[in-house]
Amino acid sequence: MKRLDNIPGTDLKIYQDPEKFSYGIDAILISEFVESGNVGVDLGTGTGIIALRVLARKNYKKIYAIEIQKEMADMAKSSVKYNNLENKIKILNKDIKDIECFFEKASVDTVFSNPPYIKAGSGIVNLDENKLISRKELKINLEEIIKASDYLLKPLGKLFLVHRPNRLVDIFFNMRKYNIEPKYIEFIKPNKSKMANLVLIKGVKGAGEELKIGEVIVYDENGEYTEEIKRKYYGE
Amino acid sequence: MKRLDNIPGTDLKIYQDPEKFSYGIDAILISEFVESGNVGVDLGTGTGIIALRVLARKNYKKIYAIEIQKEMADMAKSSVKYNNLENKIKILNKDIKDIECFFEKASVDTVFSNPPYIKAGSGIVNLDENKLISRKELKINLEEIIKASDYLLKPLGKLFLVHRPNRLVDIFFNMRKYNIEPKYIEFIKPNKSKMANLVLIKGVKGAGEELKIGEVIVYDENGEYTEEIKRKYYGE
Repeated sequence: MKRLDNIPGTDLKIYQDPEKFSYGIDAILISEFVESGNVGVDLGTGTGIIALRVLARKNYKKIYAIEIQKEMADMAKSSVKYNNLENKIKILNKDIKDIECFFEKASVDTVFSNPPYIKAGSGIVNLDENKLISRKELKINLEEIIKASDYLLKPLGKLFLVHRPNRLVDIFFNMRKYNIEPKYIEFIKPNKSKMANLVLIKGVKGAGEELKIGEVIVYDENGEYTEEIKRKYYGE
Repeated sequence: MKRLDNIPGTDLKIYQDPEKFSYGIDAILISEFVESGNVGVDLGTGTGIIALRVLARKNYKKIYAIEIQKEMADMAKSSVKYNNLENKIKILNKDIKDIECFFEKASVDTVFSNPPYIKAGSGIVNLDENKLISRKELKINLEEIIKASDYLLKPLGKLFLVHRPNRLVDIFFNMRKYNIEPKYIEFIKPNKSKMANLVLIKGVKGAGEELKIGEVIVYDENGEYTEEIKRKYYGE
């Protein structure tokens, strides 16, 4: 069942179908983590949540958002239309692996993505197909996403990812392989005493080697969102 | 001035020259982090602190400890002799880059190292030559250490490193390049509110891809060592 939800910290709304996919804290975190730019590409946009929220929260002239699943891409298009953003956000129902067919090389400032977290062949199987494609590397894997980012980015262009910490070796290995140097990672911890279950990664194409590390705590001692998380959801 | 110091958590003593190099918390942390095995190799042993402490704290039949600087290797040899461990620890005054000349391929269970943290060409310069060689990648770099480890290790053999978090991309990239998969990293934080300034890395040769992450806090709110650190220094 498609329903219309508010996007926190913006005046925008988004169509979602909770049975298929509805955004979580990862979408909020990555859309705050992305830095301002002119032209951005969202690889695997799903419902369009990250593209919409980056547009509302950051200063972009144009965002291209790619989604392989027709049903999801159509829902994202209807959200873009609902918000009257058709001149700002272009939803492309394409395969990221064919990126060279529909983008010029080194043509964008920024790429961002909330890719499927789980390797094909491991973990969950008994899910709706849309959910599976969003969560598992069935249609595309991390290396292919990073390879597409390398193709898209101008020199010193930036790649922003949200992923699981258990994939950090894959992320670093492939980013360096494709000349996008990881410069900053931010671990997201459920609370002070738990280890991170998400990590944000900023890479810069062709940059020098030097990694910085930060962390964000989601819940305080009372189980409430920390001030930092509230700012990310609702702040100016 | 050479002096004889106790090695915490052991009955052993070690010769050190504080003007050249004396061990820090990194040596304690890595010698606790190393897991038990039969034959171990310490790459760049310096005074021999890690080889001695691993032998005393873990169950090894034999440890080979390589050091390129003759003066340091001689001091390490005198410590081994002082402790009557000449049948257990062999100090080799060799260049790690020549490892193939004096070790069989795939002949050891475990390799450990506290390598120079700083890239050649950056940072400190006005130090005693011994200190510089211990701290900067003048005689050997991280990739060469990992390459030597790959040569030395049996299948599923383990590599343990202590390094700076800003080099984590280099570490992951080169370990995977040389087929030693990073399986666990442990961030060492000076206190709860500071970011890590050291990281311990465990890699396993030929293992599957899945990284786990932990952390250790060094000082509590009163500026005293935490119980965990005290156990690492002095525990049974």
